[in-house]
Amino acid sequence: MKAKAAVFLGAGKPFEIQEFPLPRVEPEGILVKVRMSTICGSDLHTWQGKREAPLPIILGHEIVGEIQEIGEGADRDVLGNPLAKGDRITWTIMASCGKCYYCQMKQLPQKCLYLFKYGHESCQNPPYLNGGLAEYIYIRPGTGIFKIPEELSDEEVTPINCALATVVNGLETIGIELGDNVVVQGAGMLGINAVAMLRERGAEKIIALDIDQQRLKFAEEFGADEVINVNQTNPTETLSLVKDLTGGYGADVVIEVSGSPGVISQGIEMLRVGGRYLLIGTVFPKANFMLDGYVVTTKTITIKGIHNYQVRHLGEGLDFVIRTHNKHPFNRLITHRFNLQEVDQAFALSASGQAFRVGIVP
Amino acid sequence: MKAKAAVFLGAGKPFEIQEFPLPRVEPEGILVKVRMSTICGSDLHTWQGKREAPLPIILGHEIVGEIQEIGEGADRDVLGNPLAKGDRITWTIMASCGKCYYCQMKQLPQKCLYLFKYGHESCQNPPYLNGGLAEYIYIRPGTGIFKIPEELSDEEVTPINCALATVVNGLETIGIELGDNVVVQGAGMLGINAVAMLRERGAEKIIALDIDQQRLKFAEEFGADEVINVNQTNPTETLSLVKDLTGGYGADVVIEVSGSPGVISQGIEMLRVGGRYLLIGTVFPKANFMLDGYVVTTKTITIKGIHNYQVRHLGEGLDFVIRTHNKHPFNRLITHRFNLQEVDQAFALSASGQAFRVGIVP
Repeated sequence: MKAKAAVFLGAGKPFEIQEFPLPRVEPEGILVKVRMSTICGSDLHTWQGKREAPLPIILGHEIVGEIQEIGEGADRDVLGNPLAKGDRITWTIMASCGKCYYCQMKQLPQKCLYLFKYGHESCQNPPYLNGGLAEYIYIRPGTGIFKIPEELSDEEVTPINCALATVVNGLETIGIELGDNVVVQGAGMLGINAVAMLRERGAEKIIALDIDQQRLKFAEEFGADEVINVNQTNPTETLSLVKDLTGGYGADVVIEVSGSPGVISQGIEMLRVGGRYLLIGTVFPKANFMLDGYVVTTKTITIKGIHNYQVRHLGEGLDFVIRTHNKHPFNRLITHRFNLQEVDQAFALSASGQAFRVGIVP
Repeated sequence: MKAKAAVFLGAGKPFEIQEFPLPRVEPEGILVKVRMSTICGSDLHTWQGKREAPLPIILGHEIVGEIQEIGEGADRDVLGNPLAKGDRITWTIMASCGKCYYCQMKQLPQKCLYLFKYGHESCQNPPYLNGGLAEYIYIRPGTGIFKIPEELSDEEVTPINCALATVVNGLETIGIELGDNVVVQGAGMLGINAVAMLRERGAEKIIALDIDQQRLKFAEEFGADEVINVNQTNPTETLSLVKDLTGGYGADVVIEVSGSPGVISQGIEMLRVGGRYLLIGTVFPKANFMLDGYVVTTKTITIKGIHNYQVRHLGEGLDFVIRTHNKHPFNRLITHRFNLQEVDQAFALSASGQAFRVGIVP
């Protein structure tokens, strides 16, 4: 048996549909039939040549699929639910070794020395099927797996294992106190999830910033109290608006999920004394920004960067969507759908900024 | 009765000895006879014109003195010890209102909206005597006061209420885990205190960096395991040395106490994945530095700036000196002594880098 995949061969080149043999399922491994993948910002960065990737590669790491074959010992998910052929599952974007310095000594399995990341590894060697833009994907030992309840649609679940779980990690890392005023810089998939989750974590005022009116509309639907189109206000006005909305003090927390390093110093300015800045979006090289050390010290600022997440963050993210999917229109965030043959078109649309999230259904 | 003070009139101008009337002591206030002040890095910055100060001003905030007159209700220190005329005391560099947004809502009395900072306020209005370069200083309500035990010398105590207490706050803020490998960038008063305190807090390897051999010698005497003269090694070598000394991973914590924003990006490079960077020294405007957002996210870096400290930090710092002054030569850090008339000379020597800490004995 073979599986078709859309293989990325480098920026500016069209995807190539190739066939790969289905791998032998080893103990603790699972073969999954992909139901849907969504194109994440970092997929786009790779496609645009802003990030390097080992070529040839099957991109796509926001994925939902159903179990095709279960390896020995992989018959339960993280919560202890039994797994069987046909079950829908979501899984961590990465597999960790569980044994190294970062896994065992520093509580950072997401930065495991031998980290394997779906959609980020070449497809040159077995088991080949490492990414979501394919009919099948092979899930390795060391991956956190969660069974998906029937009440959730594929559209609601697909972006959970990247965008949503990353936000869970981010909010845990920066810490949200009851009544915090929070600015979210960027209302893409990460930003919208952040807005929804901040509301549930007890934030007082949630202020979303973006340059796109459709995104800001989503932000409002997901719970933002105020939205500011930063294309229609100059930086001084934006800063003064944020100050006005936060009692004159500035925000307790600012979250960068825009992927634009240019917004960082302005975000720091928006903070109150003692404020916390969470950096998530700058996941491409040379995302340089300038800060004034005088501001960082005298305002006693905290800045935290995060990358990836831990198994529990995905579990908590899934629970969050189960709790709130009747309140929030997660479904509607997947604005377009393509099949494997249309991947070039899908990336072009995604890069144009005219879609919110683009889904690939193999 | 009058008190002499050395008044600062602006960068490049000599100090002027002026006389001020002794103030009436209000409830909760204390009049103190200054025994010794030491010249802090930020005094130097003001003297050099790198920082603005409200003129005319009596500089000096690292001070030890003895009680001259006690206001109603100021008869006990923070720990409940009775206070009497002639007792030696140390006190927080600042007085907080205890009532405002930062004092009450955000646990930041050190950033009180109505903060009063000794040695940082003009001497134009009563009670005039706000700084340490004077025969007397007036201590206001809202200041944390600690009685000094006889076993400590003036030299051991004077720098506690700025350099040492700031380090206590810094290490608490950034968090030191058992076995952390720590790099200290700068072996001035803050750096030396950090080295000594890191040892006591259970750090594994303490690596001190400076451009001055005498300072590095002090760092070794106070407990540094390794010292690197960054004038004698290039940045690549320094980085590789730090990596070698930390199992190839990089430091868990890097502490900036050099006052040079230029060292910050190199300090970030020295961190392991998940490392924490503590920024203390950049307390003058336009201390600009550049960072790569890709590094901050993918290495999941934490950066924290601090400024000032809380009452408990001074109390903990005093206890630390009481516990360790027989082990560490705190006395010897005050390398030179001048009287009030020699303040110009004292600042010039201090700025030359040829003294470690300069004391003024009125």
